[in-house]
Amino acid sequence: MSDPRKNTRDIYPATGTELTAKSWLTEAPLRMLMNNLHPDVAENPHELVVYGGIGRAARTWKDYDMIVAALRDLEDDQTLMVQSGKPVGVFQTHKDAPRVLIANSNLVPHWATWDHFNELDKKGLAMYGQMTAGSWIYIGSQGIVQGTYETFVEAGRQHYGGDLKGKWILTGGLGGMGGAQPLAAVMAGACCLAVECNPDSIDFRLRTRYVDEKAETLDEALEMIARWTAAGEAKSVGLLGNAADIFPELVKRGVRPDIVTDQTSAHDPVNGYLPQGWTMAEWKAKRDTAPKEVAKAARASMKVQVKAMCDFHAAGIPTVDYGNNIRQMALEEGLDNAFDFPGFVPAYIRPLFCRGIGPFRWAALSGDPEDIYKTDAKVKEILSEDAHLHNWLDMARERISFQGLPARICWVGLGVRHKLGLAFNEMVRNGELSAPIVIGRDHLDSGSVASPNRETEAMKDGSDAVSDWPLLNALLNTASGATWVSLHHGGGVGMGFSQHSGMVICCDGSEDADRRIARVLWNDPATGVMRHADAGYDAALDCARENGLNLPGIL
Amino acid sequence: MSDPRKNTRDIYPATGTELTAKSWLTEAPLRMLMNNLHPDVAENPHELVVYGGIGRAARTWKDYDMIVAALRDLEDDQTLMVQSGKPVGVFQTHKDAPRVLIANSNLVPHWATWDHFNELDKKGLAMYGQMTAGSWIYIGSQGIVQGTYETFVEAGRQHYGGDLKGKWILTGGLGGMGGAQPLAAVMAGACCLAVECNPDSIDFRLRTRYVDEKAETLDEALEMIARWTAAGEAKSVGLLGNAADIFPELVKRGVRPDIVTDQTSAHDPVNGYLPQGWTMAEWKAKRDTAPKEVAKAARASMKVQVKAMCDFHAAGIPTVDYGNNIRQMALEEGLDNAFDFPGFVPAYIRPLFCRGIGPFRWAALSGDPEDIYKTDAKVKEILSEDAHLHNWLDMARERISFQGLPARICWVGLGVRHKLGLAFNEMVRNGELSAPIVIGRDHLDSGSVASPNRETEAMKDGSDAVSDWPLLNALLNTASGATWVSLHHGGGVGMGFSQHSGMVICCDGSEDADRRIARVLWNDPATGVMRHADAGYDAALDCARENGLNLPGIL
Ligand SMILES: NC(=O)c1ccc[n+]([C@@H]2O[C@H](COP(=O)([O-])OP(=O)(O)OC[C@H]3O[C@@H](n4cnc5c(N)ncnc54)[C@H](O)[C@@H]3O)[C@@H](O)[C@H]2O)c1
Ligand SMILES: NC(=O)c1ccc[n+]([C@@H]2O[C@H](COP(=O)([O-])OP(=O)(O)OC[C@H]3O[C@@H](n4cnc5c(N)ncnc54)[C@H](O)[C@@H]3O)[C@@H](O)[C@H]2O)c1
Repeated sequence: MSDPRKNTRDIYPATGTELTAKSWLTEAPLRMLMNNLHPDVAENPHELVVYGGIGRAARTWKDYDMIVAALRDLEDDQTLMVQSGKPVGVFQTHKDAPRVLIANSNLVPHWATWDHFNELDKKGLAMYGQMTAGSWIYIGSQGIVQGTYETFVEAGRQHYGGDLKGKWILTGGLGGMGGAQPLAAVMAGACCLAVECNPDSIDFRLRTRYVDEKAETLDEALEMIARWTAAGEAKSVGLLGNAADIFPELVKRGVRPDIVTDQTSAHDPVNGYLPQGWTMAEWKAKRDTAPKEVAKAARASMKVQVKAMCDFHAAGIPTVDYGNNIRQMALEEGLDNAFDFPGFVPAYIRPLFCRGIGPFRWAALSGDPEDIYKTDAKVKEILSEDAHLHNWLDMARERISFQGLPARICWVGLGVRHKLGLAFNEMVRNGELSAPIVIGRDHLDSGSVASPNRETEAMKDGSDAVSDWPLLNALLNTASGATWVSLHHGGGVGMGFSQHSGMVICCDGSEDADRRIARVLWNDPATGVMRHADAGYDAALDCARENGLNLPGIL
Repeated sequence: MSDPRKNTRDIYPATGTELTAKSWLTEAPLRMLMNNLHPDVAENPHELVVYGGIGRAARTWKDYDMIVAALRDLEDDQTLMVQSGKPVGVFQTHKDAPRVLIANSNLVPHWATWDHFNELDKKGLAMYGQMTAGSWIYIGSQGIVQGTYETFVEAGRQHYGGDLKGKWILTGGLGGMGGAQPLAAVMAGACCLAVECNPDSIDFRLRTRYVDEKAETLDEALEMIARWTAAGEAKSVGLLGNAADIFPELVKRGVRPDIVTDQTSAHDPVNGYLPQGWTMAEWKAKRDTAPKEVAKAARASMKVQVKAMCDFHAAGIPTVDYGNNIRQMALEEGLDNAFDFPGFVPAYIRPLFCRGIGPFRWAALSGDPEDIYKTDAKVKEILSEDAHLHNWLDMARERISFQGLPARICWVGLGVRHKLGLAFNEMVRNGELSAPIVIGRDHLDSGSVASPNRETEAMKDGSDAVSDWPLLNALLNTASGATWVSLHHGGGVGMGFSQHSGMVICCDGSEDADRRIARVLWNDPATGVMRHADAGYDAALDCARENGLNLPGIL
């Protein structure tokens, strides 16, 4: 039997203004599902893999086809249910209800391990949804660029007086998310050395201008870094190698990067991390035939890499876990001080989350870049005072190649998101934009995730592991009328370590959409402010008061 | 500081037709929350405990008061969010959205243990919601009587040719749920010996006519059983004692019950199971001061009890786990064959779940028993051919004392539930009933729970632990317009072992309610049929076809 997950088809979403489904509310998830598998967007579209190890958009190709058929057929008062990438039901709801409801990779906690997941996966009973892969709002590496940029800028502010000129960042992994690192570093004014074991990933980033140069040896890469930092030039190099070899080697040589982090897919020991001494071919083959052996070897190598990261940290170099759960893996391998260095959220991002600020994003269903440029201009007009944001939009336009449907990311929070949504909807209505816009966000956002090794690490009140919050977020977005809503387990930190929810809303230009947008794009970030206010953060409490939130047990 | 969970107040819901909130859609959750804490309903209302160990209706008394205040103030296009028994936000939604959204006790899987929960609980950051305690649709022991009755009847059918006359059932626990066992046994025609360590619990069941007699010694109890079974009389006795002492003693004596089970609160080793050799007073005191010691001793005793249950099973006596996870506890204590005897769902209940049949229930917000009697008659009229159901309703009316707001339980499935709902709504509209009715169900239902040691034990396709299903159920009920929707973790099998969702819908007599009822009471059981059809059960596939369900990836 052929593998139900392998196919040679190339998927492209429809573009333009002609509907291929019954309305824009169903056309939107249809185009975005296809966009997730667009050859320029997905990491391995022929195996349905969008990004982040084995994060998929549908369980099998057959399921993909059935989802497409169901969406084409769906009425505007019906709702399609998707269970781990498989379409399982169409039910009568109403026009203000979501058109699609999604639950991916959720397991009862006692069984929420990679072993059990892999067993189910092999039987065809599961799919790894990552965050935006199985919920159809991945927009390529751009999705992560601004978050990474904001993180590096904040690190520069905290450690280097706000100036990263002549500084360099060491990291690993140039995959779907990690590929954003060199570009974000350069945008923030720093150089970057990224260790990546897959030559194709480096070439992909070169082609899309996310990385500037490629090196085959460490010496070559270090020579470039030395030259660029001396000249005060912000440039990046992808070094072909294994991070578990290169990181300790740098420690041994006494080389001092200015910031150290990593974005290999360490959250998934079977599929995400090349063990030391293995070739790519060997790794690929054994993932299927001997997954346990792969995981064991990968975990051992992760421990070596984290040990080196701890050494950098001990030497006073700002070192940060970039959300791939690599510290946990090393801890489980017996590296007791694996959590010596912090995660990036408590270090740099939480103050933003307290105000509901996170990776807000939108895409132009028309496929026309002009639609995005017009929304860029609208954002600048509405947020006319925000110089930092104007700067970001200018850089993004200049440096970021669109992948698939043109899209934009822009970290904004409560009080702003709904204004942008309403403005975009108005632009659709009056014909300024050629077709509807969808607005969504990463699951990594302020109110949508419980992830004690990442987004909710070291919460002020110790509530890191409480996952009522993302569940409430999903229920409220459903009640508010988002166009599709998703609930995932696993994601960026792997099985057992997080629960999170996503939402996307379609601006089809209608007045019904106005009402939904006003509710959803207010309520969604407000749940983030609520969650952080409940944990006792002053910034969140202030934000809640300023915005007049009604939080009975909190305010 | 005084304990925020202790108070001497007695809570009674309003009755009659006068509103204490702004509409029946908010009056309904208000009365049902209060009803959960009614002195005749809750096991320990002064500590906010409704049933099932520490299953609470609100996190603290302050939270209770704030929930009440928020509900009184809530508009019909607003939604109150409740996070582990605390009211955390009021948001703008719309009239077809739920008025309350609830998430209780949910923890990220890696941290989903009693230890971590108890730590959070101590800090005031958690509440155990059980199933219907924190979701405000507990209706006293009646809620479980019919399920237990159906289970005993089915056991009689499978093992004793459909006749339980002269047979007797051995069990443990006469708490909120377990208290239903003697009555259900008697209704099914059998005698029952129930071992209970708390004299108050026995007295409570005597008072409410759930148990017929009380015994202080095993000899006394066995004498009654011998006498009744010989006479072919169906009667029950509550024996004061520790099940971990009595069960092995019976094995030792060679006494052979006809069916063996148990409903102590074994799912919660700290609060739910009296260790052997301890007094009740000692147990109560140490739960607060030395919880770990209690848990250790309780687990050791559970192992002893399960060992005896395995012995009964080995001796050919039908023995079944009644959903309190006691096998898992014994297994973790090293009793390798703890899972020798099955759970009650795969043994007796799954065929019902395949057709969406489960513990459907309703309550009369008027407080008037006549309203329930009228609905009883309506059910008989609509299901005029169903003799088994008529029989149940007659027995229920005769034998079951209402607790708190009058309520009825009735196991019905897809295709019937919405009909009953619409009929009740019509009766409210035309004044046949004096006030609105709420309709809900247990979380233990066909589409609403993932619980590999109970409801989803031994699923045909091995998908026991997949919890996408209850999450989809909650999202769909939210999208369909239930009046309140809840998502819980833990419940009857304890931390880490289940995820489940609840829903309640208010029949206020309006035409809007007609539309919502038609959607919710169809979609909700349909998700159960969908879940079992996906797992490959023929009965579910047939039911889906008969009812014309649209299940793209399944049918
Ligand atoms: N911080 C965040 O905001 C955030 C967001 C999303 C994802 N993540 C996490 O970051 C990680 C990377 O995500 P992604 O989408 O880029 O994943 P990916 O699987 O697309 O890319 C991982 C890359 O790492 C490379 N790699 C694996 N082992 C290596 C090794 N030993 N040495 C060098 N390179 C190696 C792979 O070849 C691949 O290119 C994941 O764990 C993901 O969950 C973080
Ligand atoms: N099968 C089902 O449908 C179903 C439904 C709900 C709950 N449950 C489970 O059944 C169990 C009982 O539920 P409940 O609501 O009655 O709980 P409860 O806490 O109200 O009652 C438990 C009773 O067991 C008694 N008990 C404790 N240890 C004992 C011992 N060693 N010997 C004798 N008696 C002992 C307690 O005194 C108490 O009266 C729970 O684990 C619950 O989760 C099963």
